[in-house]
Amino acid sequence: MSARLKLGMVGGGEGAFIGGVHRIAARIDGQWDLVAGALSSDPVRAHASAATLGIAPDRSYDSFAKMAQAEAARDDGIDAVAIVTPNHMHVPVALAFLHAGIHVICDKPLASQMHDALQLEQVLAASGKLFVLTHNYSGYPLIRQARDMVARGDLGRLRLVHVEYVQDWLSEPASGKQAEWRTDPARSGAGGAIGDIGTHAWQLAEFVTGETPEALAADLSSFVEGRAVDDNAHVMLRYASGARGMLWASQVAVGNENALRLRIHGDKGGLDWAQENPNQMRFTRFGAPSQTLTRGGAGATDAGLATTRIPAGHPEGYLEGFATLYREAADAIRQHDTVRSSAPDTLLPGLAAGLSGMRFIDACLKSSQAGGVWTATRAT
Amino acid sequence: MSARLKLGMVGGGEGAFIGGVHRIAARIDGQWDLVAGALSSDPVRAHASAATLGIAPDRSYDSFAKMAQAEAARDDGIDAVAIVTPNHMHVPVALAFLHAGIHVICDKPLASQMHDALQLEQVLAASGKLFVLTHNYSGYPLIRQARDMVARGDLGRLRLVHVEYVQDWLSEPASGKQAEWRTDPARSGAGGAIGDIGTHAWQLAEFVTGETPEALAADLSSFVEGRAVDDNAHVMLRYASGARGMLWASQVAVGNENALRLRIHGDKGGLDWAQENPNQMRFTRFGAPSQTLTRGGAGATDAGLATTRIPAGHPEGYLEGFATLYREAADAIRQHDTVRSSAPDTLLPGLAAGLSGMRFIDACLKSSQAGGVWTATRAT
Amino acid sequence: MSARLKLGMVGGGEGAFIGGVHRIAARIDGQWDLVAGALSSDPVRAHASAATLGIAPDRSYDSFAKMAQAEAARDDGIDAVAIVTPNHMHVPVALAFLHAGIHVICDKPLASQMHDALQLEQVLAASGKLFVLTHNYSGYPLIRQARDMVARGDLGRLRLVHVEYVQDWLSEPASGKQAEWRTDPARSGAGGAIGDIGTHAWQLAEFVTGETPEALAADLSSFVEGRAVDDNAHVMLRYASGARGMLWASQVAVGNENALRLRIHGDKGGLDWAQENPNQMRFTRFGAPSQTLTRGGAGATDAGLATTRIPAGHPEGYLEGFATLYREAADAIRQHDTVRSSAPDTLLPGLAAGLSGMRFIDACLKSSQAGGVWTATRAT
Amino acid sequence: MSARLKLGMVGGGEGAFIGGVHRIAARIDGQWDLVAGALSSDPVRAHASAATLGIAPDRSYDSFAKMAQAEAARDDGIDAVAIVTPNHMHVPVALAFLHAGIHVICDKPLASQMHDALQLEQVLAASGKLFVLTHNYSGYPLIRQARDMVARGDLGRLRLVHVEYVQDWLSEPASGKQAEWRTDPARSGAGGAIGDIGTHAWQLAEFVTGETPEALAADLSSFVEGRAVDDNAHVMLRYASGARGMLWASQVAVGNENALRLRIHGDKGGLDWAQENPNQMRFTRFGAPSQTLTRGGAGATDAGLATTRIPAGHPEGYLEGFATLYREAADAIRQHDTVRSSAPDTLLPGLAAGLSGMRFIDACLKSSQAGGVWTATRAT
Repeated sequence: MSARLKLGMVGGGEGAFIGGVHRIAARIDGQWDLVAGALSSDPVRAHASAATLGIAPDRSYDSFAKMAQAEAARDDGIDAVAIVTPNHMHVPVALAFLHAGIHVICDKPLASQMHDALQLEQVLAASGKLFVLTHNYSGYPLIRQARDMVARGDLGRLRLVHVEYVQDWLSEPASGKQAEWRTDPARSGAGGAIGDIGTHAWQLAEFVTGETPEALAADLSSFVEGRAVDDNAHVMLRYASGARGMLWASQVAVGNENALRLRIHGDKGGLDWAQENPNQMRFTRFGAPSQTLTRGGAGATDAGLATTRIPAGHPEGYLEGFATLYREAADAIRQHDTVRSSAPDTLLPGLAAGLSGMRFIDACLKSSQAGGVWTATRAT
Repeated sequence: MSARLKLGMVGGGEGAFIGGVHRIAARIDGQWDLVAGALSSDPVRAHASAATLGIAPDRSYDSFAKMAQAEAARDDGIDAVAIVTPNHMHVPVALAFLHAGIHVICDKPLASQMHDALQLEQVLAASGKLFVLTHNYSGYPLIRQARDMVARGDLGRLRLVHVEYVQDWLSEPASGKQAEWRTDPARSGAGGAIGDIGTHAWQLAEFVTGETPEALAADLSSFVEGRAVDDNAHVMLRYASGARGMLWASQVAVGNENALRLRIHGDKGGLDWAQENPNQMRFTRFGAPSQTLTRGGAGATDAGLATTRIPAGHPEGYLEGFATLYREAADAIRQHDTVRSSAPDTLLPGLAAGLSGMRFIDACLKSSQAGGVWTATRAT
Repeated sequence: MSARLKLGMVGGGEGAFIGGVHRIAARIDGQWDLVAGALSSDPVRAHASAATLGIAPDRSYDSFAKMAQAEAARDDGIDAVAIVTPNHMHVPVALAFLHAGIHVICDKPLASQMHDALQLEQVLAASGKLFVLTHNYSGYPLIRQARDMVARGDLGRLRLVHVEYVQDWLSEPASGKQAEWRTDPARSGAGGAIGDIGTHAWQLAEFVTGETPEALAADLSSFVEGRAVDDNAHVMLRYASGARGMLWASQVAVGNENALRLRIHGDKGGLDWAQENPNQMRFTRFGAPSQTLTRGGAGATDAGLATTRIPAGHPEGYLEGFATLYREAADAIRQHDTVRSSAPDTLLPGLAAGLSGMRFIDACLKSSQAGGVWTATRAT
Repeated sequence: MSARLKLGMVGGGEGAFIGGVHRIAARIDGQWDLVAGALSSDPVRAHASAATLGIAPDRSYDSFAKMAQAEAARDDGIDAVAIVTPNHMHVPVALAFLHAGIHVICDKPLASQMHDALQLEQVLAASGKLFVLTHNYSGYPLIRQARDMVARGDLGRLRLVHVEYVQDWLSEPASGKQAEWRTDPARSGAGGAIGDIGTHAWQLAEFVTGETPEALAADLSSFVEGRAVDDNAHVMLRYASGARGMLWASQVAVGNENALRLRIHGDKGGLDWAQENPNQMRFTRFGAPSQTLTRGGAGATDAGLATTRIPAGHPEGYLEGFATLYREAADAIRQHDTVRSSAPDTLLPGLAAGLSGMRFIDACLKSSQAGGVWTATRAT
């Protein structure tokens, strides 16, 4: 093993949720040291959080802009920055670090506005740097395995894709830091549930099937009085291949915590996986008994095994799936920085996944505003 | 107990599926004796089937028309006829028996064409007879309980209705008597999966919520080459109350046998029930742990208990739910024939459910043919 | 089909549980008519119950002894009697009907005392009549299939048998008719939970494996103050083949309704079945993914299919499994009465299962009273 | 946060399983840096493994004895050693580090022989150092919550404890490094399955209930030809309180990966938890519907929440439960080294749990060798 890579973080101070997740994910496989941060827009909170996390005072910054400059100037500057701010800051922060020549690991969705996303696309291309978008659910070993199984034809020709991501935590008017920014269009973007969790569902289906719907019809709702963004989205999907799908994202489905489920049916087989018990996946060949595939168990594919840390029956969870992205990001950066000319062979979601998610949000909004009409997803 | 009622049957000879189900359902609670039948359009098969079932030779008929006349003329004629033919014969047979003054118990869907359904509506109104449509899934005790729970406000104001009914038995080109007529528009009607199982899903949601969607957008597919009817239907639903829903019916979802599932979410609670393990239902009050309600167990409502035969933990199944309709039909007939002026208080699905199902099929076909546009469901 | 057989019933008047179950079970496949009964030791209740059930007044009897005599004397007398009394009456009633030349269908356990059981054995042998003991759980299609799978070697050489039958309804001092007699040694026998449900667990394991443990060590408890019989039984099992097992029967395991579960492991495979969702069984070949076998689904064996009424995915339950015993009893009686010299080929539990259960109860009591020592099960 | 603590490791070189687990567990919460090791008894492998793990060459040792001495002598010496060798080396290594004044974190079971365990007890008492035994399953949040629930009386007076830990990976003759030492009495100890996994089951039940059985009857088997230790253990348990239990440990139960399950029943409630889906636990109050408690969800207790990193619905797994022990060990060491006179208030398993496990192994062996007789567990 080479020495650990050096990670900086923007956002993720006290009271944040996803920042802590990124930090654990970065630690699990021992590839990263967190050495710098602009952890909050409030300087007092930023420095207090940095101290708690063992970041040296001189590398706790008041602003991400200063941090990008300063870290780029150091010999021992960070290898990559993790962006864990509310959505509207993803692109501004990413641009600053890309301009400074620093790789970026960014939470999803890519941006709060398509305009920002497109700007990022241009800057990234010019930068020659890596950009990782933490669609963590695609880091689960059985999701990697599902992708292999689809690709090698275990399901035959795909017919149906059903993905749902349903929660209930926003069933009542929002309170708390998390709920507030996620339902504020200025920070979250025009999409509510579709941006926050719908993009995960969209990416998961895209990652496993290798196909992107060409059109969708969306019916977005905002059930809680006074809410400015959607809290429920019903979407029908059409694929160029002839496959059809449904996507349901909700934050008001009482009785659901974080129920992301993917079902795929082809003419030869079907798959069924649910995130809350991610170590099992049901697979059926037409006419045969259903099988329960387990993470790392009988029938595991190479890609599934490569992301498995412990034997079958010893459950891995959300943090391990997330950690896989950090490990793969470390691998990609090492490879990138050594052999600059070749792109690493990676399953990491990046800009393409992010743009696809932005087009998904846009198409949902357009479709729904027009009364739920079918809308193309490919045009930008 | 009064003496058993006398049942006749049209259709349901050897090789049929649903006829045998009706016969067991009629026997379970000991309220009916099967005494007459026109069991097949093939006289040899009709009489052979009748003999096997213990029907006296003089009450095994070559045609349903003769049967209606002959039974009406007997002092000991049948109290009701069970119609278990392919869909296109439901109305012609029902009309014959209603004209003869005999109550009708009919398998779903109501008809293969809306025109027939409307004709039945007129004749039924004039006949003063009872008409029961065997949407058997609404006979499950926990479905009765779910209806009670929605009605008394356990879920609060309804927001979301998700119903799916997915199978895989038609994943390949049809073979066998069952598959053939169910995919033949001349016998089944223009709807394939939406008629055969979609109407069950539609009725189940309507029965439990007490609401009928006012509009839908449907995307029907026919995945198997050469199939003349839909084998998969994706439908989005809008309710006048502001609730939203999704309905999925499929006969090509590999890995599913008879997976009918209903989920309902209101602003206070959520319900989740699946037909393949019908003795349990998940219920969650917002903010509290999910509960597993069991048929006849703690928390059972009166309507749930009234349709429960054996203690919790001793599973009842499909046949018992079906039998409940036959028991309630017997009760309704006894009450009707005694006190003609008052309609019995019953949860039995009948003409209204049937017409609703026909409007559902029609709206799905219209919507899908127009490219998946939103279409009203209420207009006939 | 021949004409229906005629059934009489002893016990099962208003307020009873298992009598109603037997009646539904007898009706489901249309092989039996209930025509006579001594439904209660209280004549008023007996006749009222008979009237409700449509039994003619002259065939509602005050006593089982009179009933046996009278029915034997009639040309149209009953073909078999169903005994659904408390345990201590099983043998006296059975003897009366066997002496009268009438076949017997008897609820389990065989008797409240070994002495009675042995007397029955002698009388039965001399009578030439059939005796069916309604260990209904062995009527479940997947249990029939499990037996086939073990017999044909799908599991390899058997190593482990785990069976548990746990309930919670007696967690507090008994109240109600059912609870009272089942905890009264004079009526139930010296075994409480081991007699009432432990014998079911014992029979189920014996039925599926084809092996009977040669020794056991039992630790019986009576957790509820004042209870005269065991309400929990822990038992370890040893088989002559070298296999080992555990049996747990409890009526005080809070959170369990009727949780009968059987797990069998051989050197090549393992099976896992649970009664509360009896339409699925997990099967694993060593080194391969677990399969979910479904009643009537892919991989069903002939014996499984022979006891299946409706397609996979349409759940059958407790009553259908029970009904299978009544159908097979009808078949056996018809065959017996036609060709007296040959025993029918049947999977029906009878005297042998009953005696095995009595020896199980006896061995448990002996073992437990001696402090939980290992005790032979084979000696009578 | 104080600076990270410094960890050394003995064992855990390439090809080991549990060493890697300890390393991830130590990293997850960012409290430890691995800085020294004697990773293998083979020096070449030891140094290669150290290099891979980023351990400086001068802190990669050929022997644990040298390591203890050298690290004790350094100003920046390790704060604690993690012992992840085969069982027979646990005590010799622990003694060396305790003698050197270094805290010990040791994998289970405590020792391969009781004699060693007792020696450790003496040395530890004299050393004034901390000793943590990584019974990791007691680190699961819902297990912490279960302990709280039992302690505060949610289940009432305990009656029944059922714990099973079943696997199938040793169903055939052992091959591979892991299988070999675990079935070799010289390295593993006289207990096979009872030592390797039975002690986990024993500790888990003890941890949650706060009670230790006073007697047991064990039936140990060795099903695989040529195997020198048990691969299956059936054990009945008796508690001084009057409670009763069963424990099943198996490594030959085909179809099970790592199926550790704990069920506890009192006179008021019951709990059911299974390790393979550790984020849910079923809880039933007598007479009420069963509840599904989720990690971090509604009804979580303080101890449950204290060990939860991410919101309900985002599954944590085996590694996080293990990490909790490392975090708590760090807390305990910091507190210990600051305020030497007071023992930290901790839920960490340590010597007492280890000795209890050794007495469990001993009692099982004695009981089984004597034919399965009841044997006291308390005497050493």
